[in-house]
Amino acid sequence: MTQRGNGVTAPQGFVAAAVHAGIKKNGVPDLALIASVHEGPIAGVFTRNRIAAAPVMLDRAHLRQKIGRGILINSGNANACTGARGLADARELATLVAGQIGTAAQTIFVGSTGVIGQPLPMASIRRALPELVKRLRRAGAQEAARAILTTDQKTKEIALSARIAGRTVTVGGMAKGSGMIHPDMATLLASLTTDAAIEQRALQSAVRAAVTQSFNCISVDGDTSTNDTVLCLANALAGNSLVRMGSTAFGAFQRLLTQACMSLAMQICRDGEGATKVAQVVVTGARTDADARQVARTIATSSLVKTALFGEDPNWGRILAAVGRSGVPIHPNKICLAFEGIPIVKGGTGLGASVERRIARIMRRKEFAFTVDLKQGSGTARQWTTDLSYEYVRINASYRS
Amino acid sequence: MTQRGNGVTAPQGFVAAAVHAGIKKNGVPDLALIASVHEGPIAGVFTRNRIAAAPVMLDRAHLRQKIGRGILINSGNANACTGARGLADARELATLVAGQIGTAAQTIFVGSTGVIGQPLPMASIRRALPELVKRLRRAGAQEAARAILTTDQKTKEIALSARIAGRTVTVGGMAKGSGMIHPDMATLLASLTTDAAIEQRALQSAVRAAVTQSFNCISVDGDTSTNDTVLCLANALAGNSLVRMGSTAFGAFQRLLTQACMSLAMQICRDGEGATKVAQVVVTGARTDADARQVARTIATSSLVKTALFGEDPNWGRILAAVGRSGVPIHPNKICLAFEGIPIVKGGTGLGASVERRIARIMRRKEFAFTVDLKQGSGTARQWTTDLSYEYVRINASYRS
Repeated sequence: MTQRGNGVTAPQGFVAAAVHAGIKKNGVPDLALIASVHEGPIAGVFTRNRIAAAPVMLDRAHLRQKIGRGILINSGNANACTGARGLADARELATLVAGQIGTAAQTIFVGSTGVIGQPLPMASIRRALPELVKRLRRAGAQEAARAILTTDQKTKEIALSARIAGRTVTVGGMAKGSGMIHPDMATLLASLTTDAAIEQRALQSAVRAAVTQSFNCISVDGDTSTNDTVLCLANALAGNSLVRMGSTAFGAFQRLLTQACMSLAMQICRDGEGATKVAQVVVTGARTDADARQVARTIATSSLVKTALFGEDPNWGRILAAVGRSGVPIHPNKICLAFEGIPIVKGGTGLGASVERRIARIMRRKEFAFTVDLKQGSGTARQWTTDLSYEYVRINASYRS
Repeated sequence: MTQRGNGVTAPQGFVAAAVHAGIKKNGVPDLALIASVHEGPIAGVFTRNRIAAAPVMLDRAHLRQKIGRGILINSGNANACTGARGLADARELATLVAGQIGTAAQTIFVGSTGVIGQPLPMASIRRALPELVKRLRRAGAQEAARAILTTDQKTKEIALSARIAGRTVTVGGMAKGSGMIHPDMATLLASLTTDAAIEQRALQSAVRAAVTQSFNCISVDGDTSTNDTVLCLANALAGNSLVRMGSTAFGAFQRLLTQACMSLAMQICRDGEGATKVAQVVVTGARTDADARQVARTIATSSLVKTALFGEDPNWGRILAAVGRSGVPIHPNKICLAFEGIPIVKGGTGLGASVERRIARIMRRKEFAFTVDLKQGSGTARQWTTDLSYEYVRINASYRS
């Protein structure tokens, strides 16, 4: 795999652009569009929150046709809890974009992120659309990646290539997400593009598996948004022979896509609201992978663990307390805990002050891993989490002010 | 019901005391003892965390005899994750206290709260015990209530009386708890005393029901401790005819005990780590009470809801997002939300900026309630939660420094 520049426009035949459409204050870009030169298979996974935003409802409907041409995303307004009007607005935007680039409305997908419960300022968005479509170009990836941000500090982009079925295939991507980041799914919008020739069924399967291993393994604050959407649009311009389910080429494409999603997920984690560090929580020795996952998630979402990470305090008792309340039957006297390979708990009890001082030094790093070994079996899981800082509170206490 | 002074020594025949036993720094009292003039039935409920501290293991064993005489509690050290040594230490403390007040070791219950994973400083605790027993007196309730605190700002005490079976029966109580406060159970130690004559089976049933309606309905940070213990010791000195399960007198005693636990639970909530306000989350119209409880808990533990409370921001979208991810099947377009009776969401959509301004004023209060009506049935639940402030992060990032 090789890394490339350009994000969503790195694969052949994709263009992007962004404009200010009057949604955010201060004239900053708040509306992005990604388009392929022609239609192709599209795959997607959406929030499991039962209160889904209007764009999620529209995209689910459009996905039944399994064909995509473009993705329109606005920031500053989530178009969630906006009732029938919100859904009509999302549909109108897709129809307007489709008309201007000359395609069927159902091939345009939409995404929104921002404040919940306010109607979109449709008049100013309508006015901005022609300029947005006119600006579409290969060099537009970065401005699109910037226009979809909310509380994010940094843009998140990726482009990776690999030889698949005899040709160089590229996957590009951009994402936004900083708060409401939690498994199933991390709150986020992620848009992926690829020039692979791939059947839609295989693309959908690959997207689902890639999300499970990437966006579903990160946690910033334990909340799940109403707007989570991961879409992947393919246009076959790489000229490879069609990738089908279960083939060797499918395995290679799956790895490429998973790697791209993993990179975006880690970028989201590092840019988590108020995050000063990212910890990888590894659980081994569980009876099953599902048990391991449950323990890892309980640790990764514990406010007490997360504040200890922020305080760079090797307070392993909080990690064990989280293990104990995870609901998984464990043997307290078997548990081992190590930071970056250095044991701090063995058989459920601490190894003393001098090892804690060594661990405290590890915790000063921006990124590190710790491993809980339950000594019950061979189930494993890993999860990334951020610390909980003053800044997280500041951002979320004053979000709408 | 009438309120009385004195906490755990308000019921007849109870004494209490506290001393500094070298566990905390600065010579502050860190060891408390409550004792009855004679043995009586005792009931208890304990943490559901699978990693239970040594005192919890000891108390569970002692509770099999169902007879109690005293409760010894230290702060500054949780005696959790301390292995066989921790259990031996807890047992030795019970035995030493029993010897000095002249009772069987199994009638002495112990509780610990503080840092996890460090052995108790047994030498200095042993030295302090004779003085502690000597100080036992009716006027000792408040110093005992103070000695069990950790990050708590205030002591939590209650004493309530009622006529039961022809006599005045009193329930006294003290509690500590500020962080790791979460249902099942709120992280806390609570010790209750009563001069009621009551069979042990009835006492155990009453304690379990009272905890369900009080300590299990509050949440500060979603973590559950290894040390949660609620004990209630009875000595029959009120002279009432024996309270048995299912009798009218039992109902009256249940109400008295629940009221006392409710008062302690609210005191804990108000003193929650970094809490600037307490919100009552009411869920109505659920298909079942269990559904309502699950929705209420998801709202009450959401970091985004809790930071919005701190920011006094009527960001109802976060409350609806929490409802949506609770796992309960709901109808998004039916949900109504009101703060102190003033509607802000109807049929899943917001009622606009002017009502939000009114709600923002309500949110400036120290205590207020909001109600989510799911419009699906008659299931209800209520839960109290605190806001998430800078101070919570400060307390927990620097807890052991």
